[in-house]
Amino acid sequence: MPRKLIIDTDPGVDDAIAILMALAASQLDVIALTTVFGNASTDVTTTNALTLLEIADRADIPVARGASKPIASNYIGPVPQVHGHNGLGDAPFPPPQLAPVAETAADFLYAGVAEHAGEVTILALGPLTNLAVALQQHPDLPSLVDEVVIMGGNALVPGNATPVAEANINNDPEAADLVFGADWDVTMVGLDVTHQINLSSAAIKRITIADTPAARLLADALPLYQGFFEARMGIDGIYVHDPSTIAFLLEPGAFTTQAWPIRVETESFSRGKTWPNLGDTDDSAPPAWRGRPRVKVCTDADAQRVLDLVESLLGANQ
Amino acid sequence: MPRKLIIDTDPGVDDAIAILMALAASQLDVIALTTVFGNASTDVTTTNALTLLEIADRADIPVARGASKPIASNYIGPVPQVHGHNGLGDAPFPPPQLAPVAETAADFLYAGVAEHAGEVTILALGPLTNLAVALQQHPDLPSLVDEVVIMGGNALVPGNATPVAEANINNDPEAADLVFGADWDVTMVGLDVTHQINLSSAAIKRITIADTPAARLLADALPLYQGFFEARMGIDGIYVHDPSTIAFLLEPGAFTTQAWPIRVETESFSRGKTWPNLGDTDDSAPPAWRGRPRVKVCTDADAQRVLDLVESLLGANQ
Repeated sequence: MPRKLIIDTDPGVDDAIAILMALAASQLDVIALTTVFGNASTDVTTTNALTLLEIADRADIPVARGASKPIASNYIGPVPQVHGHNGLGDAPFPPPQLAPVAETAADFLYAGVAEHAGEVTILALGPLTNLAVALQQHPDLPSLVDEVVIMGGNALVPGNATPVAEANINNDPEAADLVFGADWDVTMVGLDVTHQINLSSAAIKRITIADTPAARLLADALPLYQGFFEARMGIDGIYVHDPSTIAFLLEPGAFTTQAWPIRVETESFSRGKTWPNLGDTDDSAPPAWRGRPRVKVCTDADAQRVLDLVESLLGANQ
Repeated sequence: MPRKLIIDTDPGVDDAIAILMALAASQLDVIALTTVFGNASTDVTTTNALTLLEIADRADIPVARGASKPIASNYIGPVPQVHGHNGLGDAPFPPPQLAPVAETAADFLYAGVAEHAGEVTILALGPLTNLAVALQQHPDLPSLVDEVVIMGGNALVPGNATPVAEANINNDPEAADLVFGADWDVTMVGLDVTHQINLSSAAIKRITIADTPAARLLADALPLYQGFFEARMGIDGIYVHDPSTIAFLLEPGAFTTQAWPIRVETESFSRGKTWPNLGDTDDSAPPAWRGRPRVKVCTDADAQRVLDLVESLLGANQ
């Protein structure tokens, strides 16, 4: 039985790669996409979620539109220099024919989880706003979910959106602190590992040269994103932030994890930092961390294994 | 000409090691000690500074008593489980015959620096309160100092006093933010390097077996401190926090440094964190870091070279 997956997402170029990987993986059954602001506005990310399903010929997967702003602050704004004004690298895609469902992301996510109690994994690729709203509105949500896997945060490494914070967490730190504090099985796939996983320009060429709808989409969407990484980060190719979560779902053994309670700072210039407490016991934890559940924090990864999986799922060399 | 040094200190077992190393180094001329709360109260650390000079037969070096509390908060309190109730591992030392000078640490430090304008290095081994008070009272201080070297902070690694903060900075974050923001040449020797430099129990034995006053003092003072590290950190021996600064003064080539602006968080549970901005330009820095001077942050060290220097200055095997 493939694993049921709801993907909460703000596509986003690397969201697109991750979604296409998930759709290609026979071990995963994507039962819904829910959308959120982040890499672009919720209008744009919802359009892109629909576009991606249309291009992948998966009109059977419903899309629920989610929050357009953080739970307790204002939307910092899109990042057109990274993801393009349209969230897909400024590649021109026709407006999708598909439409979102009527329900909000939080309600749709809860309904989907409740319908398959204990069987659904939530994969969060954007700010954690929809998950936080779902937690606030449906306190029994954690007991119904199989697992939550998050692309976001930085435990032992610097941030990328700010000196202290990773972009997804930085977009809604209050929501993230709720999600990391809830009583469910959460894995954090953050910059600690994604900054170790560099998809080279040669690998990107092998992926985008294929004669498939997914490859053609990425061939159009990737150049601007790749250009940002190469100019600003000085690497060849891109870091595979969101796609690394798909690798974690399929090959968790490629990742080293530590079980640490996580607090998310919401104050001052440390806002958005995901702080682990590395201590052994809850008794020895400072008050801010005491009584918090332990999150599985990815601290190391077999980068080549992840990269091989990205290439194989996207049909490189086929 | 040996380099003139004023040591601001809260002895403290590792302060004692560092001071004894400085007194033994022919390249250094310790012209004063100034004391501060931290590892123990200022009463205790002032007594210990005098005791150390007496044991080292250096009654010629004046001691000025400094602040007994942080500039904008309350003293967290001593750490008898680390440094003993007397700040020297609970080893019994007779009360010193020496007495401190009448001036405060901040005034004495300024006067010493002004007397030898451009020639004095300030070595800060405790909370940065005295330096901050001196900056507030004598705005021309930075222009008169040769260099400031600080044991404190954690740029890219977790804290030790809290999950986020190193002990010296945590003891007065507001003072530290002033010191890292002043226009002088500052080097931060923090946990990024000192947690790489482990003086083994075998090395401690070689040091404390020597028939010298310094070795006898350390033989009495070290066991409790060493026991803390071995029980709480799971290492053999100790990390040489304060002594690493002496190695930096004598052999800076043993350290890798990066020039980063540093802000010290004073709010919420991130209080005491020393945050570098790793960006290349001041223009690209977030407002909190913009216009701040660059601090030389030690990010890597040749541990064996540092350890060899510790042993050689403390007269091991002699």
